[in-house]
Amino acid sequence: MNNFQFQNPTKLIFGKGQIAKLVEEIPLNKKILITFGGGSVKQNGVYDQVKKALKNHNCIEFWGIEPNPTVETLRKAITLGKENQIDFLLAVGGGSVLDGTKLISAGILNENEAWDIVRNPKLLGECVVYGSVLTLPATGSEMNRGAVISNMVTHEKFAFYSTYPTFSILDPETTFSLPEFQVAVGIADTFVHVMEQYLTTPNQSPLMDRWAEGILQTLVEISPKIRKNQHDYDQMSNFMLCATMALNGFISMGVSQDWATHMIGHEITALHNTTHGQSLVIVLPALMSVLAKQKQEKILQYGTRVWNITTGSTEEKIQKTIAQTETFFRSLGLATKLSELNISQDTIDEIVSRFETRGTMLGENQNVSADVVKEILELAK
Amino acid sequence: MNNFQFQNPTKLIFGKGQIAKLVEEIPLNKKILITFGGGSVKQNGVYDQVKKALKNHNCIEFWGIEPNPTVETLRKAITLGKENQIDFLLAVGGGSVLDGTKLISAGILNENEAWDIVRNPKLLGECVVYGSVLTLPATGSEMNRGAVISNMVTHEKFAFYSTYPTFSILDPETTFSLPEFQVAVGIADTFVHVMEQYLTTPNQSPLMDRWAEGILQTLVEISPKIRKNQHDYDQMSNFMLCATMALNGFISMGVSQDWATHMIGHEITALHNTTHGQSLVIVLPALMSVLAKQKQEKILQYGTRVWNITTGSTEEKIQKTIAQTETFFRSLGLATKLSELNISQDTIDEIVSRFETRGTMLGENQNVSADVVKEILELAK
Repeated sequence: MNNFQFQNPTKLIFGKGQIAKLVEEIPLNKKILITFGGGSVKQNGVYDQVKKALKNHNCIEFWGIEPNPTVETLRKAITLGKENQIDFLLAVGGGSVLDGTKLISAGILNENEAWDIVRNPKLLGECVVYGSVLTLPATGSEMNRGAVISNMVTHEKFAFYSTYPTFSILDPETTFSLPEFQVAVGIADTFVHVMEQYLTTPNQSPLMDRWAEGILQTLVEISPKIRKNQHDYDQMSNFMLCATMALNGFISMGVSQDWATHMIGHEITALHNTTHGQSLVIVLPALMSVLAKQKQEKILQYGTRVWNITTGSTEEKIQKTIAQTETFFRSLGLATKLSELNISQDTIDEIVSRFETRGTMLGENQNVSADVVKEILELAK
Repeated sequence: MNNFQFQNPTKLIFGKGQIAKLVEEIPLNKKILITFGGGSVKQNGVYDQVKKALKNHNCIEFWGIEPNPTVETLRKAITLGKENQIDFLLAVGGGSVLDGTKLISAGILNENEAWDIVRNPKLLGECVVYGSVLTLPATGSEMNRGAVISNMVTHEKFAFYSTYPTFSILDPETTFSLPEFQVAVGIADTFVHVMEQYLTTPNQSPLMDRWAEGILQTLVEISPKIRKNQHDYDQMSNFMLCATMALNGFISMGVSQDWATHMIGHEITALHNTTHGQSLVIVLPALMSVLAKQKQEKILQYGTRVWNITTGSTEEKIQKTIAQTETFFRSLGLATKLSELNISQDTIDEIVSRFETRGTMLGENQNVSADVVKEILELAK
């Protein structure tokens, strides 16, 4: 096991009717900016629950944080926050609203330009405290420091790291009215988050392996039930808990991490505005094939424990495991090839050229070069 | 899934050579009381590492917190802390030193008598901040708010809840020199902690089930290796991580909990000074037998997933699963019957009488009465 440090101070408030707890979590003397995406929270009753809980608080609202939140939009919220001397932020929505709110939190008390804060960790200064009411399980942003921000001018998308949410309220009932596609990409995103922390170096921590597999096994078990009935409270609770646990540090103690699938997926999203989870499931099976030798031992373990693939030669078991992974993604109604989304060779060439220019090497062994990225994307055509 | 709240702010600092990090974790202006058990940390080099890391800090020492820490000893440390205006505590040792330090932390700034603080949660006031250097994986005290304190006069043993450690440093190398018996009871204690949160109501959270089973499976896998070579860094790391994760709230989100085994085990320890983990493994198999009907579904799931018991009638599978659990405890070199420790009928009668007097009902369904406790202990003779 590698040496590690772990700390995650976020308070999770989970279950039916818990949005009302907002009143206990935010002091009355705070000047709150509530951040939203589009208007779905007005249809599903979440907006009303939030306003009711905070009826005696001093709140203003910022609407319009988009999927793959852009620095262009967030700059406006930062200006609003500065003008109104906001000292508490409340994100109400999915991972994009949360990610965007992390940059707003970092920007309000900071004199630097917002995109510079994203690109240069040294510019992160004091951040405004924030909490969240999560309505879309997927990114894990409700219990981590990470955010991914897009730039519309440069067509770039980068991660940055800020502070943890003080609290996150997760009421599974808020997910009942999500579009089926959003639930599918949420499950896919959760699945790939786990794979990035799991499908790496073997024998680093049997416990972290079991916990990662536990999330994957649960997702495999609940997904058909959720596809059948999205109003099943228990199954949506299970999904919501899986999504949060998949990216809060609980399964990455003492083990190496990959994240090449995400880095490549971000580029697809940056160039085509493809939904994040959809990008990932196109990249992952191809990446597993290209890196099958390096990841052999872990792919076999994953195949055995998650998919019960125990017969055949090593080669056959690996093939079956990758095929089964792709089949699972397709069972969610997602595309697993670039061509299905009309993404052409031009995009592949542009992505490879970006990695060449940056010279960054990806993956747990830092050996996924631009050439390997090309191989992966060619296989994903 | 039940509604729940979860928050655990403790910073884990894990791995070889990490005791040196103390210098970064405690501000130089703090007046520190370092608390110890017996002298083993002087033999294994931990004491020297701590003193080296804190060579420029202002520290005094308190020695002699015993296994099953007593309020009588802890009162002396509280007095020392008050006299010296201590504003940081550092526990160096196992779960007992940590548990004792939690009461010291609660007592220094409090005018109430220490045993009253243990017995009445309302008396808990401001606590002195504390961290730990853990040398014995077992209790999970390094990452939770709980402590168990004994009273030598009344021969009682009770849990109380204080604040979380600010940080805990876990260096697996510090466990190499532990007596074999301490490692065995540490594994047993960890195992039973998981069972208390797992072997309850079925179908509450498939993810929490998988994570609980993941700890049990890991303990089963690593125990023979540890019994063979206690200097195996990876295996002792795995054990240390399991022990911490078994009782930090990570596996109990949204699920009911039992704790009857602990409540009964505490009484055995209170009356005979039996080591905590040793008491537990005597109670658990008997409790599983007596409550086999109520816990049937979960026992079958546990038998299948942890012990691969898949054949036979329901009755046979339950019997095999309980027998296998007992065999595992015996493989650690522990006793699983009261008679092996010369604990006689008098003790059983006294324990039953205590539960009768208190009138408390135990277990996840609060239906384990004094009569059921009697049945369990009679079976454990």
